[in-house]
Amino acid sequence: MPSEVRVSIAGASGYTGGELIRLLLAHPGVRIQQVSSQRFAGKSVGKVHPNLRKGTDLSFSPLEEMQPCDALFLCLPHGESSKRKDWVDGIAPRVVDLSADFRLADAALYERWYGKPHPHPELLGSYVYGIPELHREEMRGAMRVSSAGCNATATILGLHPLYAADVVELDRTVVEVKVGSSEGGNESGPATHHPERSGCVRSFAPTGHRHTAEMIQELGRGREIAIHFSATSIDMVRGVLATSHVFLKQDLDEKAIWKIYREAYGGEPFIRIVKERDGNYRFPEPKILAGTNLCDVGFQRDPASNRLVVVSAIDNLMKGAAGQAVPAFNLMCGFEETTALGFLGLHPI
Amino acid sequence: MPSEVRVSIAGASGYTGGELIRLLLAHPGVRIQQVSSQRFAGKSVGKVHPNLRKGTDLSFSPLEEMQPCDALFLCLPHGESSKRKDWVDGIAPRVVDLSADFRLADAALYERWYGKPHPHPELLGSYVYGIPELHREEMRGAMRVSSAGCNATATILGLHPLYAADVVELDRTVVEVKVGSSEGGNESGPATHHPERSGCVRSFAPTGHRHTAEMIQELGRGREIAIHFSATSIDMVRGVLATSHVFLKQDLDEKAIWKIYREAYGGEPFIRIVKERDGNYRFPEPKILAGTNLCDVGFQRDPASNRLVVVSAIDNLMKGAAGQAVPAFNLMCGFEETTALGFLGLHPI
Amino acid sequence: MPSEVRVSIAGASGYTGGELIRLLLAHPGVRIQQVSSQRFAGKSVGKVHPNLRKGTDLSFSPLEEMQPCDALFLCLPHGESSKRKDWVDGIAPRVVDLSADFRLADAALYERWYGKPHPHPELLGSYVYGIPELHREEMRGAMRVSSAGCNATATILGLHPLYAADVVELDRTVVEVKVGSSEGGNESGPATHHPERSGCVRSFAPTGHRHTAEMIQELGRGREIAIHFSATSIDMVRGVLATSHVFLKQDLDEKAIWKIYREAYGGEPFIRIVKERDGNYRFPEPKILAGTNLCDVGFQRDPASNRLVVVSAIDNLMKGAAGQAVPAFNLMCGFEETTALGFLGLHPI
Amino acid sequence: MPSEVRVSIAGASGYTGGELIRLLLAHPGVRIQQVSSQRFAGKSVGKVHPNLRKGTDLSFSPLEEMQPCDALFLCLPHGESSKRKDWVDGIAPRVVDLSADFRLADAALYERWYGKPHPHPELLGSYVYGIPELHREEMRGAMRVSSAGCNATATILGLHPLYAADVVELDRTVVEVKVGSSEGGNESGPATHHPERSGCVRSFAPTGHRHTAEMIQELGRGREIAIHFSATSIDMVRGVLATSHVFLKQDLDEKAIWKIYREAYGGEPFIRIVKERDGNYRFPEPKILAGTNLCDVGFQRDPASNRLVVVSAIDNLMKGAAGQAVPAFNLMCGFEETTALGFLGLHPI
Repeated sequence: MPSEVRVSIAGASGYTGGELIRLLLAHPGVRIQQVSSQRFAGKSVGKVHPNLRKGTDLSFSPLEEMQPCDALFLCLPHGESSKRKDWVDGIAPRVVDLSADFRLADAALYERWYGKPHPHPELLGSYVYGIPELHREEMRGAMRVSSAGCNATATILGLHPLYAADVVELDRTVVEVKVGSSEGGNESGPATHHPERSGCVRSFAPTGHRHTAEMIQELGRGREIAIHFSATSIDMVRGVLATSHVFLKQDLDEKAIWKIYREAYGGEPFIRIVKERDGNYRFPEPKILAGTNLCDVGFQRDPASNRLVVVSAIDNLMKGAAGQAVPAFNLMCGFEETTALGFLGLHPI
Repeated sequence: MPSEVRVSIAGASGYTGGELIRLLLAHPGVRIQQVSSQRFAGKSVGKVHPNLRKGTDLSFSPLEEMQPCDALFLCLPHGESSKRKDWVDGIAPRVVDLSADFRLADAALYERWYGKPHPHPELLGSYVYGIPELHREEMRGAMRVSSAGCNATATILGLHPLYAADVVELDRTVVEVKVGSSEGGNESGPATHHPERSGCVRSFAPTGHRHTAEMIQELGRGREIAIHFSATSIDMVRGVLATSHVFLKQDLDEKAIWKIYREAYGGEPFIRIVKERDGNYRFPEPKILAGTNLCDVGFQRDPASNRLVVVSAIDNLMKGAAGQAVPAFNLMCGFEETTALGFLGLHPI
Repeated sequence: MPSEVRVSIAGASGYTGGELIRLLLAHPGVRIQQVSSQRFAGKSVGKVHPNLRKGTDLSFSPLEEMQPCDALFLCLPHGESSKRKDWVDGIAPRVVDLSADFRLADAALYERWYGKPHPHPELLGSYVYGIPELHREEMRGAMRVSSAGCNATATILGLHPLYAADVVELDRTVVEVKVGSSEGGNESGPATHHPERSGCVRSFAPTGHRHTAEMIQELGRGREIAIHFSATSIDMVRGVLATSHVFLKQDLDEKAIWKIYREAYGGEPFIRIVKERDGNYRFPEPKILAGTNLCDVGFQRDPASNRLVVVSAIDNLMKGAAGQAVPAFNLMCGFEETTALGFLGLHPI
Repeated sequence: MPSEVRVSIAGASGYTGGELIRLLLAHPGVRIQQVSSQRFAGKSVGKVHPNLRKGTDLSFSPLEEMQPCDALFLCLPHGESSKRKDWVDGIAPRVVDLSADFRLADAALYERWYGKPHPHPELLGSYVYGIPELHREEMRGAMRVSSAGCNATATILGLHPLYAADVVELDRTVVEVKVGSSEGGNESGPATHHPERSGCVRSFAPTGHRHTAEMIQELGRGREIAIHFSATSIDMVRGVLATSHVFLKQDLDEKAIWKIYREAYGGEPFIRIVKERDGNYRFPEPKILAGTNLCDVGFQRDPASNRLVVVSAIDNLMKGAAGQAVPAFNLMCGFEETTALGFLGLHPI
């Protein structure tokens, strides 16, 4: 790789794009070459992302004016990157796609959860699934990575050690995520109108959420599994908290569970096992993760049954999107995985 | 009953007591005789409940100065009413107890969930459990009613028709409630300090919540059942939203589920079945119930499994406490059940 | 008046219209005849105002299908009611207009603050300005009342006694209101997108707010006065808090100020003077007024200067709109002024 | 200075202390030697500041075990640092005091606003007032700096260029700040109990706020001035927005005002002039400053009078406390002023 990697971001006026710009501006090995936006072409970045005022002189370019670069982040709407495959291939050798297009490797799984056939099934499997804790080695030197869905990321990171250790009943897991309004992106509409969205506890996807497919792929690893997933919007801007109810096949106590998590995550730079006896932060809390690339994971054994409740939290725009894309990029380009991701989060907030 | 029922409230400076005063001030058949508070004895009600300024001239009395009355609402801390049984019996023939002391009929169930034996097991069963939708006939003319826990109320009302119709697997139900900060009462402390409590998604009871015992009693009705319950605090003051994941024994479609709910709740004055195709309020939302005695119930069938997700919402201080106590009182005294409970709720809020 | 007044509401799908329906459903002397909405014509009221589900069977009619009635509430966008004068005159003898069209009596004042001439200057002055505390006698039996702007209502009610007593310097008053998102109505857009509007402290009108004209008219009463007004949006749905800084012409102590307020407002059913030594609610707070028609007013003398800080709070959709319109209607029709407005507000909330 | 400056923080378990630890952990020229807390002595920092879990192995020491160091940050309660003068002098040559003890240089001004004589008037004036934009040169190599109050910082930075240019009437300025709950620190109590503090618009200091004295000192610079100051708490954790109403002595248009601000702040690394024609962020907003050391300043000329409204925003824990202390430290020790303060803030949030 060159000493300074030239990076461009397609679809950079959205929330995820803004976070990518923020992170990459502070990356010592990167020069942001171009950032695209059709709607804001010609406008300065600080106009759209007010936190970046004075932080950069970049302006948005229209997509058709993007030049070849060393690495491309794709933050286009779902469906766009598979439609523009040739264009993408011509722009950059290394691509991190933050859309849903290439997360699933199995066309049948895609069709079941997306309700239509994948437009380019021949490309499925050509992207590495973007959670480094599960696919780090595949990412080193890879040319294509597909970032995971935010709810999928929180859930998968919470449950992966248990499924890998094969200690849970495969058909009983119930997962409920509580999510903030930034998950829906920056387009306004009746559903996000403040008087309606404020104070809400909105059951927007009791069943049928598409991220379920990713959980089945990554946790199942070939096994037939069911994830009974629901998603509820709450009055929060950033953050996902996944509460996962799994049922243990064996009678494992909390110490045994600790061991499973420590073995899986003891060396992970972006995962903290959070489980304290007292205080307000006994379990993971998304709010203190705002702006960080951390996933906090905790759990509690139910003494009344074989249930284990796992709680996992992330910032959906960071570990669930832009933040997740940067370690992938770092691994693809040979940088230290944690580069540009040192922010520790704020408290109180 | 006399044409004007003289009512007193013991422990009236808390949030539930405040709501009871508000409701009873507007009750055409009631005169509030006394409201007690040790801490605020001598102070005017409006000093503690600022919404009631100008609404009443009442002041708080110490508990020991309470006089006999026709009906007594007990809003004392858990444990107090069983300890003061003789005093209670001497004050009023009709009692609605809003504490947890007499909700359970079974001493073993109490001990399992409260972690200690009940101090007066001989009294268990002498109170009618306070949800009128399940115990209306027992309440008519009853002398003792024990109001249900707020989380128990939301969950039981969401699931009761399904358990009564015997269509759910008895050991698999997972329930997760999202609750506001008023559930914890009006005593401040580190857990409710605004910078910490604001924006939180706090897993305060992943397992072991005591209200589970009430769910087992009321939904099980003698059957052995498991309710895998968790509770999460969110940034909200009033409200409970229960998301219940039940697994159907038979393949019932949404129409069949509708029928079960309509038969159970079609004539209920305080229950609305909420299930719409579009809009922001497709499912129950606690915020539009603030100040009302309503429980909204909705559901969605999971096409991917035999799961049914039931969503139920209440105002914890109303249908989950003070509001629930008033229909019980009305039924005990021969008033129309809905008296003083006509407020329809605010939108937007 | 007939024993049952037939009332219609034009433009009833907005937030103010929803509140009017809620209030009038509980009015013992009213039958709601029709509620109009172009966008939701044919839909049930509960579909748009989810709090009213089960509370009414009414559906929306298109404006052109409205029938003559005894009294009409106009909740149309600004400009519509002056444009439709003949239609309005033909529908109802009694009209309460909640738009801004007829609040000002002076065409020059209108033009100065609205930036264009009034389309029907000949009609100015034909409507009574809608704050009953200032214009009660004119309202009795009146045929046309124009409800005041929400920010104007909060400010005018806070300051009226001082201006009437002529104790303040006329060119120095600075007023700052903090307002919720429902002030902007129910149309979504980029400015109300939850991730942007949540947590904001948005200086949306540092200068130039149109409600200033109403303050000048009602407080000035012919005198030349300046109101240096600013408005800031905060993370709240309902409510206005006006903080007014006035400068006293004479050295009045707090006792003297109390006297002025008590004389002005001692008998007012919807005004409370709120000024306590301790506690969280020493001064007015909009949140405990949600759903009420109250205006709370308090003040503090600045010992460091001749400044008096006046704090006044309302619910913008109630005392600032729908609630204000109902006493006007009551006075016009000969009902008790407070009819249908007994709700005391919630605490906590 | 040594290549690695050994720094200690006294009173590090509070919110400001936590932010200082976070900032200094990322400072390339600093080693944090000790952090003190009486209450949490022996506990790990991550236990109290949950965002710092895994970010440091530090534990709290009791104050009496603090060792000599190169530089000391004092985050003790007001009154403590003047009481402990000798101890402070013995611990460190360089001190940044974040309490209110040494902000004022004039004993009479202190007594007027604090209501009692200063305990050590002989020390007044020995500390440099901590706003680098006003006192940068005095800070270079200084041994004592006193950080400014958060509300004072926001107000002074908003108004300083105008007062320095002598264009405002000196007796008419009205300032109103909207503040978050973290201003009150991390001690819980009835005033910060979430059900009460949530959604509040609390007029906690209509008059008499002590930070006014700092504004008089720094803006007046010897002139007799009045700042008519009020403070209102809103539902926000971090942030101050100051809305300042000043009255111009001459008829300056917006272009002339721009010039004054640009000349004063054009080269300032931590100040942005924010004034846009459209969008949600036309004026400063505290939320996008969370975690940053920025102060955003904007303004609007009132065409109806000689008023100029100035809007200034900061993060009270950063530019208003911990963040402000770090540039002072950097200047005292010869580091680049902006070291460790590069975080750009989050959007959305």
